[in-house]
Amino acid sequence: MKRGTIITIGRQCGSGGREIGQKLAQKLGIPFYDRELLRLAAQQSGLAPENFELYDEVPTSSLLYSLSLGNHGVMLGQYDMPIHQKVFLAQFEAIQALADKGESCVIIGRCADYALREREQVVKVFLKADPQARVRRLVEQYSDLTEKKAADQMVKTDKRRAAYYNFYSDSRWGSAEGYDLVVDSLRTGIDKTVELIAAYADLRFPE
Amino acid sequence: MKRGTIITIGRQCGSGGREIGQKLAQKLGIPFYDRELLRLAAQQSGLAPENFELYDEVPTSSLLYSLSLGNHGVMLGQYDMPIHQKVFLAQFEAIQALADKGESCVIIGRCADYALREREQVVKVFLKADPQARVRRLVEQYSDLTEKKAADQMVKTDKRRAAYYNFYSDSRWGSAEGYDLVVDSLRTGIDKTVELIAAYADLRFPE
Repeated sequence: MKRGTIITIGRQCGSGGREIGQKLAQKLGIPFYDRELLRLAAQQSGLAPENFELYDEVPTSSLLYSLSLGNHGVMLGQYDMPIHQKVFLAQFEAIQALADKGESCVIIGRCADYALREREQVVKVFLKADPQARVRRLVEQYSDLTEKKAADQMVKTDKRRAAYYNFYSDSRWGSAEGYDLVVDSLRTGIDKTVELIAAYADLRFPE
Repeated sequence: MKRGTIITIGRQCGSGGREIGQKLAQKLGIPFYDRELLRLAAQQSGLAPENFELYDEVPTSSLLYSLSLGNHGVMLGQYDMPIHQKVFLAQFEAIQALADKGESCVIIGRCADYALREREQVVKVFLKADPQARVRRLVEQYSDLTEKKAADQMVKTDKRRAAYYNFYSDSRWGSAEGYDLVVDSLRTGIDKTVELIAAYADLRFPE
């Protein structure tokens, strides 16, 4: 794969996105950013790191946002911006700064595909799987989760990720439209999905 | 790829599905069925081949269907069945007969993924691309098409395919959910999409 290729991975909860991204980055010998992006964004923005933990992939309530706009009666500047949006913007800028470095990397979630929409050398992947298979995986991973709890948490996490993505980007989270490649990661298997994405990135941007 | 693997390819109009399927079948040295399936279904069913040309991937009007059910007042048997449905059923059976032979092949469209939903050794692919890129491809391919005509025809063909698929199958045409792999075939390129699908089929069902 050509130097400077960024692989963005959107993922349904329980589809193995983090593990696949980590193994892919390891296989390709390039950095991996999932929650790692938060520390980077905090450092670069000067905002307190706690905000990034609290508001990571949390959608702005568009109603509250409109109300706050209404109250101010003017376009919001950086200083009046709700904290959710400052966090989003800091992550957005951290993603673009990563791309500016011209090094390859893997980025999980956080609208990275949208942040990099005007760049050529990006591979946009979305991972999905059958809901029952994802619940099984979550229960296996987290011993304190019952099947019911896992299913609830999965639905909520996906709703939150979708709302966040749909609010900030111009396409719909998880719809096939915006991505280069959508894979059923659990039917395919974690390691084979890693191989597939690596092969695809090589095909798209050969050395 | 293991013998007996069937690759089904759903496709948006203009995404290059036929060319990709043909090249893939050629690369793997296995048979290819697109409209070729119609002749096979006609032979096996005894229905006149014209019906297959007329009703290929044409949805049954569900309103007309309900009315005809209402008139009969009973479940439809093979003989009372509207011709659309006889054609669908004959294709459905031809697809299953292909799978029963235990040979690998590539099948384009015609709800093949649904017809084979209870079989293990199937790779379910969907090809999609940006609408503007698909219009450009259609205009390049068919010299008598203006851009406007191509766009109209594309939208109509996709609506027809979606209605057909959604009527007969239990999932939604083109939504990422039902497929193993969704690829943006025009951003990826025809030949690279062929390579990718071949690599994926090898990963899923190694020899």
